[in-house]
Amino acid sequence: MNKFKKKALDYHSKFPSGKIKISPTKKYKTQEDLSLAYSPGVAEPCKEISHNPQKVYKYTNKGNLVAVITNGTAVLGLGNIGPLASKPVMEGKALLFKIFSGIDVFDIEINETDVEKFIKIVKSIAPTFGGINLEDIKAPEAFEIENRLKKELNIPIMHDDQHGTAIISGAALINAIELVNKDIKKVKMVVNGAGSAAISCTRIYKKLGVKPENIVMCDRNGVINTLRKNINKEKLEFAINTDLKTLNEVIKNADIFIGLSVGNLLTKEMIISMAKNPIVFAMANPEPEIDYNMAIKIRPDIIIATGRSDYPNQVNNVLGFPYIFRGALDVKATIINEEMKLAAIKAIANLAKEPVPKNINIIYNEKKIEFGKNYIIPKPFDKRLITYVAPAVAKAAIKSGVSKKKITNWENYEKELLNRINYI
Amino acid sequence: MNKFKKKALDYHSKFPSGKIKISPTKKYKTQEDLSLAYSPGVAEPCKEISHNPQKVYKYTNKGNLVAVITNGTAVLGLGNIGPLASKPVMEGKALLFKIFSGIDVFDIEINETDVEKFIKIVKSIAPTFGGINLEDIKAPEAFEIENRLKKELNIPIMHDDQHGTAIISGAALINAIELVNKDIKKVKMVVNGAGSAAISCTRIYKKLGVKPENIVMCDRNGVINTLRKNINKEKLEFAINTDLKTLNEVIKNADIFIGLSVGNLLTKEMIISMAKNPIVFAMANPEPEIDYNMAIKIRPDIIIATGRSDYPNQVNNVLGFPYIFRGALDVKATIINEEMKLAAIKAIANLAKEPVPKNINIIYNEKKIEFGKNYIIPKPFDKRLITYVAPAVAKAAIKSGVSKKKITNWENYEKELLNRINYI
Repeated sequence: MNKFKKKALDYHSKFPSGKIKISPTKKYKTQEDLSLAYSPGVAEPCKEISHNPQKVYKYTNKGNLVAVITNGTAVLGLGNIGPLASKPVMEGKALLFKIFSGIDVFDIEINETDVEKFIKIVKSIAPTFGGINLEDIKAPEAFEIENRLKKELNIPIMHDDQHGTAIISGAALINAIELVNKDIKKVKMVVNGAGSAAISCTRIYKKLGVKPENIVMCDRNGVINTLRKNINKEKLEFAINTDLKTLNEVIKNADIFIGLSVGNLLTKEMIISMAKNPIVFAMANPEPEIDYNMAIKIRPDIIIATGRSDYPNQVNNVLGFPYIFRGALDVKATIINEEMKLAAIKAIANLAKEPVPKNINIIYNEKKIEFGKNYIIPKPFDKRLITYVAPAVAKAAIKSGVSKKKITNWENYEKELLNRINYI
Repeated sequence: MNKFKKKALDYHSKFPSGKIKISPTKKYKTQEDLSLAYSPGVAEPCKEISHNPQKVYKYTNKGNLVAVITNGTAVLGLGNIGPLASKPVMEGKALLFKIFSGIDVFDIEINETDVEKFIKIVKSIAPTFGGINLEDIKAPEAFEIENRLKKELNIPIMHDDQHGTAIISGAALINAIELVNKDIKKVKMVVNGAGSAAISCTRIYKKLGVKPENIVMCDRNGVINTLRKNINKEKLEFAINTDLKTLNEVIKNADIFIGLSVGNLLTKEMIISMAKNPIVFAMANPEPEIDYNMAIKIRPDIIIATGRSDYPNQVNNVLGFPYIFRGALDVKATIINEEMKLAAIKAIANLAKEPVPKNINIIYNEKKIEFGKNYIIPKPFDKRLITYVAPAVAKAAIKSGVSKKKITNWENYEKELLNRINYI
């Protein structure tokens, strides 16, 4: 067994098994404490909620509780390994939610692959939660599941595999384009991959200003063009009128390559054929579409981002979901809408452009660096993220009219946010 | 607003709302920690579990995780207040599980009252959990739900409203009968109430030795006899051949009154008419079937237990469920069977007969007391409960062949148990 594998297994198996636990948040040492927490005292909040359902947010954890829900059909790069084997990932997501934004998460692994049945199950357990993060559900089922749940429930819901990557890479994209001084309305983009993340990323990039006619999407069968038959409706949305068939052909002179496919698929020749100052987001995991070191050697003018933490510009969903749900929960948003996602993108992008405080080290080649080609998005442990992103999302929710609670004192809210991450 | 109500509401509403939170159990401060907890390290336990499903117990929290599940149809004495308003009770149950036996609980409130649909939902989310505690689901649906889930899933499942009270009052009953020196095979018993708790209690009392022909059950319409029409199959099980119709008639000369009905229903006359050394378990909440002080004044020879913590002999489910699930989880029991419940009863009853250690105060009338009519069952905060009850349940599971894991070193297991309650 290799060393890293052993370390990962030991991390999960040592006492107590897994990564999360339940802890009490109130006093519980005396008979009197328990008479408040449970019978007879607990009847009082029950009665209050029964008279006014909104009070569930006042007397229970619902308003800080998100369900991370999967059926295990598309787990990491491992595919359909089922609900049981997906549990370590979901517990991991719970851990990330907690440490980065103070949100409590119950991971729920559901043994159901049928779309209609899955939707019914999630709807039925929804009273428990303040929000729902869908995770590792395969496309195209994931699209229908998310859309329907968003329509049929009135709490924030997000399928992070779709939107998380879209949001973080969107922030990276606007900063990268700014750095190379190109016009987002004119850049030529090739998207390789057509799964749920690729579809969602490309939709967001269009919202950010990339023109539909400048985007070519490829799947494992090559360019998605209008000549292709039997392509699903999501892919059809990106089908263009061309007789070009291969990635090889379309990447020539492209300004941007977006990879959400498989490792080591982008060849030297392809990357050489790209336009000046190419932007390459090679986000396949664990191996990017092109080896990072090879890419910067062949194209010194490149801006490259990957999914890996050992290279600069890691596109890591953890920059987004904890704070998006934080902002959404804190104003009791009834949905996570486009306005909120765009607000998150802008906040994340702007944070990278801020001067780096003394207590944060952004290191490249052993030197401290600031905003530039090797630092286009914030780092996961940047403590400023919560106070940048969550309020931006909350404000967008209020402005777009989907919040059931207003925040008026934003300074105070910032303090509350810091309080949240200090309360692990 | 009265003072206690205010205290109870304040307890629930002060930051953070509710009573429980999620906490990380492993390191999470560095990039490396997160590379083990989440991508890429988390793929390793996923792959292990995918090859051998039993390893989910090794690498995740499943083996220490119980779902407290309700649909809110029979909450406390409040009735059908629905899933949302039941949440404070379920979070309270989570708190009790945690502090008394170290078990983590996700409370799940399900918006579904149809029996078949409810069963399907619970089955579909079961991969998440090591056990399921059904809570506050109304009868008769609760019987079918519990029976079916026990048959169709292979993890420990218990409807605590049925079996919890049965187990604790069963322990109290054998000690009370011993104290008055009567023969359990000959005692005459009246059960007032015919809901799920009453049915389940009476079944257990029969298992403990009370003869079916010596038991009379009454519901709000009086004695359940074979002349009655349209009674459900659970009640039919206890219908006796008599023309007596009222509680008033049947309680005369009874040795034991079991109340699982409503407050202040037992009159002075009724209690005077009972046999010598009557045993009265007046378990209605919050008001017992008879006022405690009145009862002991009228019948100084009485042994009385109630559901209240402010009188002696509180029949409190918390003496049972934390340790029953603890024992069941620790040997990976595939069910909670009768043998395990009877083992719990005997362990609880025996603990009350043990000499009281110096650090535990059992007080009556400002004096320390030992086993006797005012101390027939242990107190909730007795730290010996976990090492008495959980191993008894675990042994019964192993002996009855329903455990997937064996324990051989019981001394070591006792240390592990103490470790569990020190790890809150």
